[in-house]
Amino acid sequence: MNDLHFNKIALVGIGLIGSSLAHAVKARGLATEVAISTRSPATLTRAEELGLGTSYHAEAKDAVRDADLVIVSVPVGASGAVAAEIAPALKPGAILSDVGSTKSSVIAQMAPHVPAGVHFIPGHPVAGTEHSGPDAGFATLFEGRWTILTPLPDSDPAAVASLRAFWESIGSMVEEMDAAHHDKVLAIVSHLPHIIAYNIVGTAEDLETVTESEVIKYSASGFRDFTRLAASDPVMWRDVCLHNKDAILEMLARFSEDLAYLQRAIRWGEGDKLFELFTRTRAIRRSIVQAGQDTAAPNFGRDVAEHKQD
Amino acid sequence: MNDLHFNKIALVGIGLIGSSLAHAVKARGLATEVAISTRSPATLTRAEELGLGTSYHAEAKDAVRDADLVIVSVPVGASGAVAAEIAPALKPGAILSDVGSTKSSVIAQMAPHVPAGVHFIPGHPVAGTEHSGPDAGFATLFEGRWTILTPLPDSDPAAVASLRAFWESIGSMVEEMDAAHHDKVLAIVSHLPHIIAYNIVGTAEDLETVTESEVIKYSASGFRDFTRLAASDPVMWRDVCLHNKDAILEMLARFSEDLAYLQRAIRWGEGDKLFELFTRTRAIRRSIVQAGQDTAAPNFGRDVAEHKQD
Repeated sequence: MNDLHFNKIALVGIGLIGSSLAHAVKARGLATEVAISTRSPATLTRAEELGLGTSYHAEAKDAVRDADLVIVSVPVGASGAVAAEIAPALKPGAILSDVGSTKSSVIAQMAPHVPAGVHFIPGHPVAGTEHSGPDAGFATLFEGRWTILTPLPDSDPAAVASLRAFWESIGSMVEEMDAAHHDKVLAIVSHLPHIIAYNIVGTAEDLETVTESEVIKYSASGFRDFTRLAASDPVMWRDVCLHNKDAILEMLARFSEDLAYLQRAIRWGEGDKLFELFTRTRAIRRSIVQAGQDTAAPNFGRDVAEHKQD
Repeated sequence: MNDLHFNKIALVGIGLIGSSLAHAVKARGLATEVAISTRSPATLTRAEELGLGTSYHAEAKDAVRDADLVIVSVPVGASGAVAAEIAPALKPGAILSDVGSTKSSVIAQMAPHVPAGVHFIPGHPVAGTEHSGPDAGFATLFEGRWTILTPLPDSDPAAVASLRAFWESIGSMVEEMDAAHHDKVLAIVSHLPHIIAYNIVGTAEDLETVTESEVIKYSASGFRDFTRLAASDPVMWRDVCLHNKDAILEMLARFSEDLAYLQRAIRWGEGDKLFELFTRTRAIRRSIVQAGQDTAAPNFGRDVAEHKQD
């Protein structure tokens, strides 16, 4: 796969994921041309200042012309509009993919617009940070992380192999599954954690008996972890909630049911039930560290400025 | 405060907090003698191997004899039994403190046993990691973190000042408040986050439609953060739940109410409500970073072994 090369890659959307792709493509020399487009003039200017591509376009349709590989990295709610705009300009034989956190909805929005001869293969790199925008990207974001492809039943195997090679060449591991299963998996590993994090931060902010200054001062006891997820891009997460509704509602129902069980155990002083849960959850942490998906260092090995007064 | 020195400090319990205290006391030369006790023979042997103190005792009452400062670092459910055991051996004028995550319950358990002439001043260093046991401790754990003291109405101001100086000398900032307020603050910043983390990890484990291997592979998308908290010491957290019941149930009720609101917004596609919450939660993250209580680095700056296959 060392000779993987594209004449032209188009990146539609240049936030955290789009700009990380730009850095990774540049670092590995994967394309002669990298065309970048975003609807925001300020973001486009910034992308150019950062030298993320070789050409910059206010209109997505201008960026995708003649591209061999087009990757759409926009909030999932905008997928349909982007597909409608770029469809007439796509080159026959081009691969069209995306990075959206929901897949059934993206397919429903984009597939109807894809012209015959264009290979539409939805994708999702399971990687990110709480930062957003073109300055947030970095070339190694995908290294050691998984990218999920959800090819359609009639996807061309050669095009799928080519897209897989692209992700592998920037350090990602690749898995294929169907879109419905992807949406269930992500609902539990990503969407529910973010929703819960946003929710608990909201709850803490609204308390009358505990001040915000206290929440901040004592946040190292657990709360601060949630604030990282709850600092993620609000547009992206609004769209995820709206576009993976069924799977998220299913996971929320399971979560709430389990929480009611725990709450009842606390109310009635059933220490054995609490101890049983608190013990078995340790094993999964060990597995995640062993799989190279997290660090074993205490507190994620974070390095916090010390002795700083608030 | 540079000449703060104790003839003898006794550490009852030598887990993460106790062993961190031992390291910090040694590093700063705060005591001539450091007597260590724990009920577990294996832990006591390990503490001695690590050279955490100057003497080692299977019985807490033997450790506290003649000590000027006694710090009890045991799961909060064991506080009463420890107090009953050590009470007859405490030296008049000694300061007796603890590090428990709940304060009203600890006071109710310990205060009745404290002999006249001994200064009982409950405390709680708001610091920790997900690791436990005598090997988990390190001298800098308390640096830049807050310790909360909850003196009793009749606490001797000189003794409170001395205990405050102790914590400050090992890098902590110190705040005083009453026990009931402490328990409410900690319920939201620490207890609820841990309970929620344990719960979501349990929910994920119990799913029939998503395998454990998938949860592990894709955990970098949010889930892994929760597994860190959910790997904390199960005995400690069982006891916290049982001993701060009222405040925890109050916070759980608020949390569930807010989550129901969010769930309803997802079901009915009310994007504006989601966007409003997801936007205002960003501010508190910034405040925590500015207060020096967390790092601004993406993903906590964690360094995960890359390209490791599962």
